Amino acid sequence: MYTVRQIADALGAACEGDVSIEVARTAEPQDAGPGDLALATSPKYAEALAEGAAQVAMLWEGADWQSMGLKAAIFAARPRMAMAGLTSMMDPGQGFGSGIHPSAVIDPSAELGEGVSVGPFCVIGARAKIGDNSIIGPQCHIGVDVTMGNGAQLREMVSIGARVTIGERFRAQPGARIGGDGFSYVTPEVSGAETVRKTLGDQGDAKPQSWLRIHSLGSVTIGDDVEVGANCTVDNGTIRDTVIGDGTKLDNLVHVGHNTRVGRDCLLCGQTGTSGSVDIGNNVVLGGQCGVVDNIFIGDGVIAGGGTKILSNVPAGRVMMGYPAVKMETHTEVYKAQRRLPRLMRDIEALKKAVLK
Amino acid sequence: MYTVRQIADALGAACEGDVSIEVARTAEPQDAGPGDLALATSPKYAEALAEGAAQVAMLWEGADWQSMGLKAAIFAARPRMAMAGLTSMMDPGQGFGSGIHPSAVIDPSAELGEGVSVGPFCVIGARAKIGDNSIIGPQCHIGVDVTMGNGAQLREMVSIGARVTIGERFRAQPGARIGGDGFSYVTPEVSGAETVRKTLGDQGDAKPQSWLRIHSLGSVTIGDDVEVGANCTVDNGTIRDTVIGDGTKLDNLVHVGHNTRVGRDCLLCGQTGTSGSVDIGNNVVLGGQCGVVDNIFIGDGVIAGGGTKILSNVPAGRVMMGYPAVKMETHTEVYKAQRRLPRLMRDIEALKKAVLK
Amino acid sequence: MYTVRQIADALGAACEGDVSIEVARTAEPQDAGPGDLALATSPKYAEALAEGAAQVAMLWEGADWQSMGLKAAIFAARPRMAMAGLTSMMDPGQGFGSGIHPSAVIDPSAELGEGVSVGPFCVIGARAKIGDNSIIGPQCHIGVDVTMGNGAQLREMVSIGARVTIGERFRAQPGARIGGDGFSYVTPEVSGAETVRKTLGDQGDAKPQSWLRIHSLGSVTIGDDVEVGANCTVDNGTIRDTVIGDGTKLDNLVHVGHNTRVGRDCLLCGQTGTSGSVDIGNNVVLGGQCGVVDNIFIGDGVIAGGGTKILSNVPAGRVMMGYPAVKMETHTEVYKAQRRLPRLMRDIEALKKAVLK
Repeated sequence: MYTVRQIADALGAACEGDVSIEVARTAEPQDAGPGDLALATSPKYAEALAEGAAQVAMLWEGADWQSMGLKAAIFAARPRMAMAGLTSMMDPGQGFGSGIHPSAVIDPSAELGEGVSVGPFCVIGARAKIGDNSIIGPQCHIGVDVTMGNGAQLREMVSIGARVTIGERFRAQPGARIGGDGFSYVTPEVSGAETVRKTLGDQGDAKPQSWLRIHSLGSVTIGDDVEVGANCTVDNGTIRDTVIGDGTKLDNLVHVGHNTRVGRDCLLCGQTGTSGSVDIGNNVVLGGQCGVVDNIFIGDGVIAGGGTKILSNVPAGRVMMGYPAVKMETHTEVYKAQRRLPRLMRDIEALKKAVLK
Repeated sequence: MYTVRQIADALGAACEGDVSIEVARTAEPQDAGPGDLALATSPKYAEALAEGAAQVAMLWEGADWQSMGLKAAIFAARPRMAMAGLTSMMDPGQGFGSGIHPSAVIDPSAELGEGVSVGPFCVIGARAKIGDNSIIGPQCHIGVDVTMGNGAQLREMVSIGARVTIGERFRAQPGARIGGDGFSYVTPEVSGAETVRKTLGDQGDAKPQSWLRIHSLGSVTIGDDVEVGANCTVDNGTIRDTVIGDGTKLDNLVHVGHNTRVGRDCLLCGQTGTSGSVDIGNNVVLGGQCGVVDNIFIGDGVIAGGGTKILSNVPAGRVMMGYPAVKMETHTEVYKAQRRLPRLMRDIEALKKAVLK
Repeated sequence: MYTVRQIADALGAACEGDVSIEVARTAEPQDAGPGDLALATSPKYAEALAEGAAQVAMLWEGADWQSMGLKAAIFAARPRMAMAGLTSMMDPGQGFGSGIHPSAVIDPSAELGEGVSVGPFCVIGARAKIGDNSIIGPQCHIGVDVTMGNGAQLREMVSIGARVTIGERFRAQPGARIGGDGFSYVTPEVSGAETVRKTLGDQGDAKPQSWLRIHSLGSVTIGDDVEVGANCTVDNGTIRDTVIGDGTKLDNLVHVGHNTRVGRDCLLCGQTGTSGSVDIGNNVVLGGQCGVVDNIFIGDGVIAGGGTKILSNVPAGRVMMGYPAVKMETHTEVYKAQRRLPRLMRDIEALKKAVLK
């Protein structure tokens, strides 16, 4: 329970009306009861206040709260930023227990910091180090020689392979896999796939061959404030570690291949994947279901729309779209032209008739 | 073991011949032994009966079973429908044990209905309610305050987060994740990605910034008769719940983002993903590897072919294809024109020479 | 610790210099310390030797190792092949314990071969058979009647469903799911989706209907030397088994649908998916994020570039690209023409003006 005043102060936001009213939950305007804080940060959302029973709401700056029948209001200058603060305050969490569950199998040589909790059926390997106040959810696996910083929060069934290094405040959603082996194989003689990479279409006369495994001797290094989504996978490097930089967030079912380096403060959205040995700069945003071919770089600040397949180097600052990826403007121009193609063909037929008869 | 008559009756199908013959298994025609029911529901499949040793088969209506050397036959009016009934009868199941395994960690405040079984190494949180005759497979996690209806069937290693609400007869394949946190972040000042959404290509002069987390206060609400595939993920909503309607089925590795609402009786096929805040109607079919951008709607009865990336609202009843998605007919027309593009270019060069010399 | 001579001999490679020097690890040239074997298999990589402190390196054939300040060198004729041997020798593994962990729940009727290890919180079902010297990582699930050959290596949290059959030397990364149910449903009457498959765009006047489940009576059969990536999924067949042939490797988050047959020595790269009832030949390589529609075949030796969506049969030996997939050469030609489309349109406008005024 927080008062309107407490919430506004925590967000650095202005508030008006009876700011001593207490709220227990947030709600969308149409669902809000009298004890809820309704979120109506634009006039469009505010219309739905009449359908609910909110007494207090978070509104946009300058909103006429009294005309909406409210008793108090908080005013958000940048509503999504206010949401970050507000949802952090109100998060009820997963309710995992505190302390070390007696069923957990923890190697005696593992070092757990102060205030660490470990859920039922966790396995923690030899010499693993877990920082203070970390929450290891139920049924997790933490491999040998893993180092993880303070304040980690792992949901259930997360696995972290041997020798992975992770910074502070790591968050992992259920089923995230850090440190699987890289997908790396070789044929005794040059394979058709190798030839195609050079010829872009001709695989030559490669014989059928079997694949030999290149093992992953590297592991994964993850910076501070990184978050990884449900069932996403980050593979081990071949010789050195695969790297995820500080502040980077991976969404659900994202795949990061072996040896890839992702910079600081990147977002890789749902089901995006990078092959091996990709070099991704800082502040890169890859929308959902993007793909990145191996052994290329993506410069700082690149933004790719959903579904973009990046098949060659992208200079810093570019905005990309399409398969294969091109500048978003080019994509739009080509796309519009494509839609006109059938008509174009009829024009050309008419021209041919007129000219070449 | 069922007799031919019992099977036919259960399916509401006609049968002929020695309908007292018993069968233990179903088989493809070429693999069928004398104790099997061969499935040969079209003349193409029936040809392979000669390669096997079937005495009884399920055939199409009007099939001349005696000329195939069979002793009895069942006739399916709509073969795939018959398959639904038949496979349901013959399903041998996973062989999970009954009762509550002593290793399971179940909070004393959890309420388990009659006939519920819980596998080894399960964790069930405080105040969780599980309906009658549910089967909770091994190594599952059911969070605090989860409600799940009667007759749920969870395979191994399913996780269900705190406060998820699920209707009757829920089925989840291994590794499905319900109730991970939504992927939602914000930068203190307007980011390049926000600007690009407006300009469709220009990210302006955004400075590098770090991402702040918007926590998920909502959970997930799932209707009756819903099935979720192996390793698929359904994220929590931000304020209200993410919603999956009655009768909807999600295939393996499908991703449903935060706040998205999926209607009744939809199919989301393998590796399809929806961003956050998508509104999907009833009876929608999204083929494999489809993607849906955030904050759009997809009307009732929309069908999208495999690989379709839906980037804007789709009215009810449309059939879509492509990246970006267009009507399937338009896609086909544009695609054919594209294939003719190289020839078209030569035509235009010829025209230019003839006209503009 | 191996001497330079021992490594060279194991790889069948030549070596020169003080071949008695011992190395404990491999390293990239710039990171290599005096006790490491630096990997610098091309002149480009060798430049970075000066940044590190390597005394010994693996180089290309004919490299002038002495001018690089090294004390010894190994010469790799085909560097990636040498990497396979070298990384196999140097792999430190995951450090899983030996023996059967006392917490594992193993059905008394299960048969474990000699030298099998089973990690904590594993569940092994009735009549399961596990071959000699297999390593079952922590928190795995092996269903009833599973057969798995010798030398399997399962990472943590792998699940294998009832009746799955697996050959020798199987490897599975964390969270791999073998034997989930196939995604197969039917409506009582013909559905819009069925009609669209015939009309390619028109769904007719299908009524809204609910989906009935077709159960999976088949399981999965996997050959020898198969590897499956983290969180990938291979579904059960409907009547017969889904099949993965000898020597085939699946990357992370790959999906193989029910009834699909994948041949020998194929590579399915990250996030690739196949629908049900696909027939894939031998030595097929599907790059990352490929998709394959149901009920088609892909001939031996087909190679598809990343992101390719295969919507119709592909003859043996083809190299494919695009959505929908076409021959890579055609794709390149069409793609180039597309980029010129906007200019082309201006040409046609000019021609129209000149001719049709």
